[in-house]
Amino acid sequence: MLGGMQYVLIAILCSFVGLGTAAYYAFWVLKQDPGSALMQKISKHIQEGALAFLGREYRVIAVVLVLVAIAMGLFLSSSGGWVMSIAYLVGAVFSGSAGFIGLTIATRANSRTTHAATKSMPKALEVAFRGGAVMGLTVAGLGLLGVSLCFVILLFASGLVGGADGLTIIPGATLTIFGLSIPAATIFSDVIPGFGLGASTIALFARVGGGIYTKAADVGADLVGKVEAGIPEDDPRNPAVIADNVGDNVGDVAGMGADLYESYVGAIVAPLALGSLYLGFKGALLPLLIAAVGMVCSAIATLFVRGRENGHPGRALSTGTYGAAILTLIACYFLVMMLLPAGTEFISGIGATLVTHTVINPVGFFVAIFIGLAAGMAIGQASEIYTSDAYKAVKRIAEAGKTGPATVILSGLATGMQSTAASIVFLAIAMGVSYFAGDWAMPAGGGIFAVGLSAIGMLATTGIVVAVDAYGPIADNAGGISEMSHQGPEVRAITDSLDSVGNTTAAIAKGFAIASAAVTALAYFQLYAEKVGLLKTGINILDNNVIIGLFIGGMFPFLFSSMAINAVGRAAQAMIEEVRRQFREIVGLREGREGVEGEYGKCVDIATSAALKEMVLPATLTVALPILMGLWSARALGGFLAGSLVVGFLLAIFMANAGGAWDNAKKYVEGGELGGKGSDTHHATVVGDTVGDPFKDTAGPSMNILIKVMSVIAVVFAPLFTRL
Amino acid sequence: MLGGMQYVLIAILCSFVGLGTAAYYAFWVLKQDPGSALMQKISKHIQEGALAFLGREYRVIAVVLVLVAIAMGLFLSSSGGWVMSIAYLVGAVFSGSAGFIGLTIATRANSRTTHAATKSMPKALEVAFRGGAVMGLTVAGLGLLGVSLCFVILLFASGLVGGADGLTIIPGATLTIFGLSIPAATIFSDVIPGFGLGASTIALFARVGGGIYTKAADVGADLVGKVEAGIPEDDPRNPAVIADNVGDNVGDVAGMGADLYESYVGAIVAPLALGSLYLGFKGALLPLLIAAVGMVCSAIATLFVRGRENGHPGRALSTGTYGAAILTLIACYFLVMMLLPAGTEFISGIGATLVTHTVINPVGFFVAIFIGLAAGMAIGQASEIYTSDAYKAVKRIAEAGKTGPATVILSGLATGMQSTAASIVFLAIAMGVSYFAGDWAMPAGGGIFAVGLSAIGMLATTGIVVAVDAYGPIADNAGGISEMSHQGPEVRAITDSLDSVGNTTAAIAKGFAIASAAVTALAYFQLYAEKVGLLKTGINILDNNVIIGLFIGGMFPFLFSSMAINAVGRAAQAMIEEVRRQFREIVGLREGREGVEGEYGKCVDIATSAALKEMVLPATLTVALPILMGLWSARALGGFLAGSLVVGFLLAIFMANAGGAWDNAKKYVEGGELGGKGSDTHHATVVGDTVGDPFKDTAGPSMNILIKVMSVIAVVFAPLFTRL
Repeated sequence: MLGGMQYVLIAILCSFVGLGTAAYYAFWVLKQDPGSALMQKISKHIQEGALAFLGREYRVIAVVLVLVAIAMGLFLSSSGGWVMSIAYLVGAVFSGSAGFIGLTIATRANSRTTHAATKSMPKALEVAFRGGAVMGLTVAGLGLLGVSLCFVILLFASGLVGGADGLTIIPGATLTIFGLSIPAATIFSDVIPGFGLGASTIALFARVGGGIYTKAADVGADLVGKVEAGIPEDDPRNPAVIADNVGDNVGDVAGMGADLYESYVGAIVAPLALGSLYLGFKGALLPLLIAAVGMVCSAIATLFVRGRENGHPGRALSTGTYGAAILTLIACYFLVMMLLPAGTEFISGIGATLVTHTVINPVGFFVAIFIGLAAGMAIGQASEIYTSDAYKAVKRIAEAGKTGPATVILSGLATGMQSTAASIVFLAIAMGVSYFAGDWAMPAGGGIFAVGLSAIGMLATTGIVVAVDAYGPIADNAGGISEMSHQGPEVRAITDSLDSVGNTTAAIAKGFAIASAAVTALAYFQLYAEKVGLLKTGINILDNNVIIGLFIGGMFPFLFSSMAINAVGRAAQAMIEEVRRQFREIVGLREGREGVEGEYGKCVDIATSAALKEMVLPATLTVALPILMGLWSARALGGFLAGSLVVGFLLAIFMANAGGAWDNAKKYVEGGELGGKGSDTHHATVVGDTVGDPFKDTAGPSMNILIKVMSVIAVVFAPLFTRL
Repeated sequence: MLGGMQYVLIAILCSFVGLGTAAYYAFWVLKQDPGSALMQKISKHIQEGALAFLGREYRVIAVVLVLVAIAMGLFLSSSGGWVMSIAYLVGAVFSGSAGFIGLTIATRANSRTTHAATKSMPKALEVAFRGGAVMGLTVAGLGLLGVSLCFVILLFASGLVGGADGLTIIPGATLTIFGLSIPAATIFSDVIPGFGLGASTIALFARVGGGIYTKAADVGADLVGKVEAGIPEDDPRNPAVIADNVGDNVGDVAGMGADLYESYVGAIVAPLALGSLYLGFKGALLPLLIAAVGMVCSAIATLFVRGRENGHPGRALSTGTYGAAILTLIACYFLVMMLLPAGTEFISGIGATLVTHTVINPVGFFVAIFIGLAAGMAIGQASEIYTSDAYKAVKRIAEAGKTGPATVILSGLATGMQSTAASIVFLAIAMGVSYFAGDWAMPAGGGIFAVGLSAIGMLATTGIVVAVDAYGPIADNAGGISEMSHQGPEVRAITDSLDSVGNTTAAIAKGFAIASAAVTALAYFQLYAEKVGLLKTGINILDNNVIIGLFIGGMFPFLFSSMAINAVGRAAQAMIEEVRRQFREIVGLREGREGVEGEYGKCVDIATSAALKEMVLPATLTVALPILMGLWSARALGGFLAGSLVVGFLLAIFMANAGGAWDNAKKYVEGGELGGKGSDTHHATVVGDTVGDPFKDTAGPSMNILIKVMSVIAVVFAPLFTRL
């Protein structure tokens, strides 16, 4: 048997496998031909815009980080305090770095993909996918590395784990750091969640701010360009066109990356903390090792993604995703059987009375991992069924266009609402089966731990899921660049086919991101209950404080969504006014006179300012509300978290799928059905698409962050919430 | 002191005051001049259509009633059984009768209001309001009478209550009926809820079926009449015009009446059952007497409603509503102080250990009644603020019309979402304050009882609230009849001013109906927990079954809404095809040739069939889901009810206010703002209005019924749910 230190070193090694592969792909992408001078110029504009946004955003975040870190150090001094502050900053810096690296490569892969498309589809697919894989593998690699480092530094440096097998927390051991003594057993539940909060802080800004940015730019560019000035999409005469392309990267690459980084870290951190309580050190180790195994399998599976001349590019991507899943499952089976063989005994290290737990059927834990992974894929597929024009929901919305925009809207809203049923059923099955399997694996305690395992099971292959998702905006940008650099129809055909696959993968990734947010928040929720002592007494819905919390928690996702939708409206308005000003003041811009260029940077700037300004109120409420509820009553906060989790999940699915369905109904008509482009039916579906934009790209994805951030805040600040 | 029998007789007497006033108004309305021959003919068409719908609906309901009654008798034989079946049938028949009477008078008051409008505004207001008051007072009167009769028959006929004060349940007493012995103390919690389920069954059909009917007729008539044939609204050439006017009555009179009848009965029944457990017979009596007092005050307050020449008709209606509220509160103060003076002691009659409760501060119970009534009014007012064009939300939606329909939709959706916050806060305050006040009034047990009292406080003035609401469709119909019978502009001006007030009162009544549904469902929810024994153990959100229930319960309102929205679409389609057929086959109809008339009855028929057919699946699910959940696990059903309550309430507010705001944004533009009728902005707001129709009149109001029906089913079938 290996000792504890060796296992964690293996996890670190696995993270290096991921990061190394990412580095290889990054250099590979940079070595590709960046295309013609015009392509390079456009790509450079996008790069500069994206980095300008990121720079402004990171400066704001830095202030927030420092303030929160100080608050944690001061107010939580009895339970981690400054040590947690450090974990918090490391978590945030790692997430921010992943976003920076991913965005840097993605915005360089775009023109290279366009250029590759002038050669062949497989080549273009390879460039776009490898560009996305840098983001995916960096997100997972840095997440895993960060949590592993917390392990090493906090525990082994102080020799708190030992015993005959090197895998036992020494009873009563304490870690002394900054003159503060922390009981070893509570490090997992008190200190490491700080790392998760760091990830959440970045995600909040990246997803909400990025979501407002991308749709303000998109809607603004469309309304003023297509509608007012009558110039087509992606036309370089439109000064907002670069901001629009920047938005794709900021929202879909950096935003989605930070979102899944947060889920990934949360899905390791929360089960790890719960596992340490029920299964000692091995329980903390298992989630980490599942992630490590998934990391390596994801890196291997990126090699499976190869386009074939005349093959469907979507097939290549699926091969990668499913390949990673199968490999991970096989490896996890052996991992569980080796680490927790039947008969393994544990003594719960926390609580007034010590309890002995015995693992009876370890395969039950494997089942939980399996069902989590399967549920993630199933929920993703359900999104696909409601949002792809290969199925009848989207066709029905397009048909509704025959009687005008109102019926398109109603049909889309009904589709989004209906789609919640399938996702909820899959989620419920995953929770039910994993709890049951965990309870069977280890009576008393195994159930809750297993629900956490299903979360990390779902997220183990984050590396390749994010890779496939980040591929989408690269392909989309490549299409935009091929348009702006006046490529021929064969090239456009290739970039279009890559882009259309990107829409499908985006829908699946969205479903997956929502499901992973729900299971992560659920795991944090249980950890919160454990920390405030409610896991024993329960959180009783009949209790007046709890039901009030449930109502207010349920309301907040609605309130937040309304703020996000209005924010897009206001920010788009600012953008429209700037573009109008440029058309008015820059002579020859609208006519496309040679050598005249819009002030692209100004538009990027305005969208950036507006996005950052608009997120102040919703972000503040997201942080403040759970703390206020908790200070009032820890039970009320329990109800609040449950309410926001259920409603946030439902609204996320509803808005993502309604928005996706409208988008594809429009594209279906544009593909020549029901009268095609320019028909009344088309106009009606365009209305649906415009309504869907802030739904699916701003308010919807914000829900993922909302439910995770609020639950991790509850975990971190739990020591303050003593009034049950 | 009066004995128990006398108190109940007083309640019965009060119900006769209400019913007597209703009868007086009914005869008064019928004595008014029914107007010209043409007015009478149109009114007759509407009457016949409404009664045809009601007849068809009641025949379907009769089958359901018999089946459910038999099921109750067979499966619940150990706890009420056939006795409960009888209470169930009585509850349903009383509710059905109220609907029949109210609808009969309302459809006769319409042409009389039109005729009165040829004389003066105050006269027309009086006719319309008194027509509505028949519905309001009948609903409340029959509700109160029914519950009182259950009291008398079940208890006093068997002499189960006695003691020195005549107000004590004799320990161990049993009621023998149909050869079945029922413990006296459980009659309140086991048998009387059957009466509530009867009310709920009618409400389910009236609200959901009526909601589908009214919007199918409205949307169908609009699309084929205004859009295709180019004839104005309320034009007699449109064969769907009568069905449209029937829809107003079926949806807003019968549907809203059945909805509030259900809330009213539930708000008496649930606190009554809970009260009997904590406060013995007096605890059962208090909710009944609050309702009785509110009944008389409502009847008196109807006399305050008098229009003044040049006065604002809305003012007269408000005087009535607020007058009733103030009178009721004053009376309730004395009632509480007299019935439950400080020092009153009770022994809980149920449970393994007997506990003595002592009333310490009876005024706390009064505070709960007060806060319930205030919350109902506040939530109604909040609806008004988000849906009236006197406030900025509606103006902002209209402004958004300048950039097209998409921004109108987004702005309306955001407004609806935002409006949930205010309502939730008022509801939370009411729950928090009433619980706190109740606990202060009587430690241990007083809190939960007081939350129930706040429900009946909110609903005590149901008589006048329904009267004011039912006034709306009468005024609306009167406007339609004055159009169809070609009245002059002065008459139209009067009916328009009455109609516009009706829109405001409808918005307030909608908010009130939602709030009352929530508190009623909450009271049933607690009763359910008590009956399955979960009030003692609690319903723990951390429990896997409970959280799965919470998720599925939260999902169902979304699923139900999607079914309701799609149902309207399909039913409207059937209507459109029928109208097209008539235009095609009936020569001279479209041109309005003298003597040629559409087959109005056919249209009514088609809308009726479609509505009844479309409600089969959602209604079946509403009944079946809670039973299936309960059979799986009583705890899961607890989570399910909480989830559906929170999400159902949120969606109800969201959809009602978004729909109302769109409606008034359109009317605001039609009033001449932002370009007025026919402008692009107007077209954009029309899209919003069309989307809002099934939101505010079908799916939204269905949520009220959904949450009440599911919780009362849980209460009634609780004895089957033994697996905790």
